[in-house]
Amino acid sequence: MEERQISKAVIKRLPRYYRYLGEILDSGMERISSGELSSRMKVTASQIRQDLNHFGGFGQQGYGYNVKYLHDEIGKILGLDQAHNMIVIGGGNMGHALAKYSAFDRNGFRIKGIFDVNPDLIGKKIGNIQIYSVDDLKQFVKNEKIEIAALTLPKEAAPEMTNILVSCGIKAIWNFAHTDLNVPKDVVVENVHLFDSLMRLSYNLSSYEKE
Amino acid sequence: MEERQISKAVIKRLPRYYRYLGEILDSGMERISSGELSSRMKVTASQIRQDLNHFGGFGQQGYGYNVKYLHDEIGKILGLDQAHNMIVIGGGNMGHALAKYSAFDRNGFRIKGIFDVNPDLIGKKIGNIQIYSVDDLKQFVKNEKIEIAALTLPKEAAPEMTNILVSCGIKAIWNFAHTDLNVPKDVVVENVHLFDSLMRLSYNLSSYEKE
Repeated sequence: MEERQISKAVIKRLPRYYRYLGEILDSGMERISSGELSSRMKVTASQIRQDLNHFGGFGQQGYGYNVKYLHDEIGKILGLDQAHNMIVIGGGNMGHALAKYSAFDRNGFRIKGIFDVNPDLIGKKIGNIQIYSVDDLKQFVKNEKIEIAALTLPKEAAPEMTNILVSCGIKAIWNFAHTDLNVPKDVVVENVHLFDSLMRLSYNLSSYEKE
Repeated sequence: MEERQISKAVIKRLPRYYRYLGEILDSGMERISSGELSSRMKVTASQIRQDLNHFGGFGQQGYGYNVKYLHDEIGKILGLDQAHNMIVIGGGNMGHALAKYSAFDRNGFRIKGIFDVNPDLIGKKIGNIQIYSVDDLKQFVKNEKIEIAALTLPKEAAPEMTNILVSCGIKAIWNFAHTDLNVPKDVVVENVHLFDSLMRLSYNLSSYEKE
């Protein structure tokens, strides 16, 4: 398939295209030129044309892009046309925040359960979602066809839990622990390193102040 | 200053160096070669030498890097040698998670208050941190010398609140809203677009499954 050759850099930009096209769709616009999209997204029109040409050139000369079509096509490429079953590892603050974030469910990412080792939490619910014991993980992953695990543990506990997740057959880890994970080649990891992000903000703030 | 010429790409990598050097420091190692750091961080040794040479070449031939020195110097460049006063906008799930995340405070990022428009929340506390009315924002930012605002609102409410934050003198916004913000040139924004991140994971998962 053509899309297999898309560079990593383009892939990284696709969610942002999807988000902007969703906003444009919500505002009622049916068509958009690369120039207009360029001024909204603050990337050059030629970058937009290059990026979107990877997907067979949805744009038509003098017409622009069909917003809904482009949004749906990018959504398919991103795997959003299928539902994905998820679990959250860790019933702490970040686990809570994820479990209660309704936008995931609306977009097909279904959180089926939360797992913790703390006996005080096991059996309770966060919103509608039950907290289970880590002992039940393997069976649950199999029965509920879980693909994605969001890992919200302290960094000290993350490596061991990563090994458990991999041994249970999890193929995608959304990592919120403040450390990088070692996984086999067929497991994908996406990191949300909040403190790295805060440090970048701090750096940018300091460099403005020095000017 | 030399560090003003550092490219954006290097800056983006600095928090990761800082994190790895912190882990190495915690493990009790005092020195590390670029080769050893390379195998831990899974980037080439030549990349490491290039990146770290921007800071005046902390490495010595045959000795390697002094871990603590390098960690501290990168920390200074990232602005971690000073305390930064923060507020959280929005007392919802993500606001909760940030307010309770103790690692920020340990590293000099002090959350001084949480702001919300919901009268049921105003006056309550999350952990030790008080929730205030948005009406009190301007005075609070001034009195408490707030530099950074973490914005944890739904995307619909984000643009108006961004304007308020800017008018109150906030110079750095840590944006968790699912939209990009328009700010003047002297205000820095760092985005944590969780759903973009989940879409990247979903894409990578789908492309493995297709293979």
